[in-house]
Amino acid sequence: MKDQYDTKGSYVTEGQEFKRDTNYITDRILADPEAEWPVESGRYRLIAARACPWANRTMIVRRLLGLEDAISIGMPGPTHDKRSWTFDLDEDGRDPVLGIERLQEAYFARFPDYPRGITVPAIVDIPSGAVVTNDYNQITLDLSSQWREHHRPGAPELYPEHLRAEMDPLIKLIFTEVNNGVYRCGFAGSQEAYESAFTRLFDALDTLEDRLESRRFLMGETITEVDVRLFTTLVRFDAVYYSHFKCNRQRLVDFPNLWAYARDLFQTPGFGDTVDFVQIKQHYFIVHTDINPTQIVPVGPDLSGWLSEHGRDERFGGSPFGEGTPPGPPSAHDSVDPAHTAEAWIS
Amino acid sequence: MKDQYDTKGSYVTEGQEFKRDTNYITDRILADPEAEWPVESGRYRLIAARACPWANRTMIVRRLLGLEDAISIGMPGPTHDKRSWTFDLDEDGRDPVLGIERLQEAYFARFPDYPRGITVPAIVDIPSGAVVTNDYNQITLDLSSQWREHHRPGAPELYPEHLRAEMDPLIKLIFTEVNNGVYRCGFAGSQEAYESAFTRLFDALDTLEDRLESRRFLMGETITEVDVRLFTTLVRFDAVYYSHFKCNRQRLVDFPNLWAYARDLFQTPGFGDTVDFVQIKQHYFIVHTDINPTQIVPVGPDLSGWLSEHGRDERFGGSPFGEGTPPGPPSAHDSVDPAHTAEAWIS
Repeated sequence: MKDQYDTKGSYVTEGQEFKRDTNYITDRILADPEAEWPVESGRYRLIAARACPWANRTMIVRRLLGLEDAISIGMPGPTHDKRSWTFDLDEDGRDPVLGIERLQEAYFARFPDYPRGITVPAIVDIPSGAVVTNDYNQITLDLSSQWREHHRPGAPELYPEHLRAEMDPLIKLIFTEVNNGVYRCGFAGSQEAYESAFTRLFDALDTLEDRLESRRFLMGETITEVDVRLFTTLVRFDAVYYSHFKCNRQRLVDFPNLWAYARDLFQTPGFGDTVDFVQIKQHYFIVHTDINPTQIVPVGPDLSGWLSEHGRDERFGGSPFGEGTPPGPPSAHDSVDPAHTAEAWIS
Repeated sequence: MKDQYDTKGSYVTEGQEFKRDTNYITDRILADPEAEWPVESGRYRLIAARACPWANRTMIVRRLLGLEDAISIGMPGPTHDKRSWTFDLDEDGRDPVLGIERLQEAYFARFPDYPRGITVPAIVDIPSGAVVTNDYNQITLDLSSQWREHHRPGAPELYPEHLRAEMDPLIKLIFTEVNNGVYRCGFAGSQEAYESAFTRLFDALDTLEDRLESRRFLMGETITEVDVRLFTTLVRFDAVYYSHFKCNRQRLVDFPNLWAYARDLFQTPGFGDTVDFVQIKQHYFIVHTDINPTQIVPVGPDLSGWLSEHGRDERFGGSPFGEGTPPGPPSAHDSVDPAHTAEAWIS
């Protein structure tokens, strides 16, 4: 999504706790052919900036489920202005399928007076050029449940019925305390709000660290939706949140279980191959001028550790894809610039 | 010292490399009784904020040499405004000996139109209330060489004649590449200036890491002036410079030799007992509003590691004080608030 700012155009509102606007366009694309937005291969385009953790979820799930041919992807660059994410990485600065320069155009095609932030991920109906949904909490669940007929053979079951009663509270905890928790630290408008946010965040990470002491993935032996949701925050933690958002009780690498777990996921096809560390750092450090007014992007930290052995397969066994299989490598179009990867740190 | 800013009151000058103003009041206090400023017990007051690395040098050397009774100390609080360091920690906001609220008054007592930054450390002549010198590069050397008759029994030889040919280039390297190198990163006015500063800083740290592979202290078996100079930057590295100044190729704790060496010094009487981590963090994060406009002070990192075993005594032997002895514990007046120490992190 686009990080949200107040009416004065700031991310930080002095004296206030950071509150995320959680009103989204909540239409859903459904397997039902009679639905307003029916599942249809080739009809929709996912707009997802590599920088954004909320968009990163959709990229990972699309890869894991093998939906690349059914749902094409457009990628805005890492930075955006107060108005919109832009297609500045594409030739002529336009998305090659939608033909637009700014994602805002697709929001306005849907609602000419759309009043809220222009966020990624967004799924756009290609024929009308209009945004169908930007409700990232629902999008990935629907990729699992509604797009089933287009999943690749061997696709994992990321949101299985029988686990939902246990998964849903965990999904909620990860959203409020971790995914959004880092933003609550970074955009706190007072020392008091920051310290309270800091305690909440690290309490939640301690809980997850404990949980990962006895199981390879959050739900057990195989990856699920909750792992995707935790991963996108963890992979940005030391590179961005530790310093930029002052989430610095300790780094990810100082949590033995969370760090090994994060590497395990990173090295699983579909996770690490969606991660562009350069775009991630550029996004946060350049866009948030009210916490980094110089817009200087740190050179570090050294990211080569992401490729080191994690040992969790030997320790726990398990099978990341359950009865299924890992996805193949990403297409050339879907691949991260090699200079932007953890491999680039190995000299 | 007070970090220096440009004519617009900024620490960062857009597009520019950070350049430290190195013009100081260079008078010296000399052992010669005929000198303009002769050594005289009780005549001078050292003004040294705990927050400031340049002032921290003088606090350490004063402790190591046992000059507490000969030279009293006044301590401004961790923050200052554009005009001056202030005595906001003292009762009634006035230094109890000099009777002034702002260090600026002592500069103006010397030069009514003093045009440069009001910096610590500064040595003030108590009878006239005027600053004698703020030349921190000379002050500590003169504490060693000129104040010898007031040294405690067993005081170490911090700047021995026979080592100066080797020490002086090392002192220069540490000053330009490390002590000032972190500021060059943090106050860089462009991405290019920052990246160049980053490379210089870590090249120098790599050199020092290598040097400490084969000797306990920088000059060998005993502590000297160069150790004091490197220590004051190292002790602030992970708590401040890593994030606030974007010196983040790696943390101090990721350099095996430098980190063990820094702990060895920290645990030596006269070093760690001068360090107030809370004042240090408050200083940087509150004063530098052009790189941290929210003025929020990070809660982390966990500092308990400073008290962990370093093993360099077993590895190298050596004798930190040479033929001499360590200083006793600091007086109550000279002691750091227990809540501001590394011990406070052990719960």
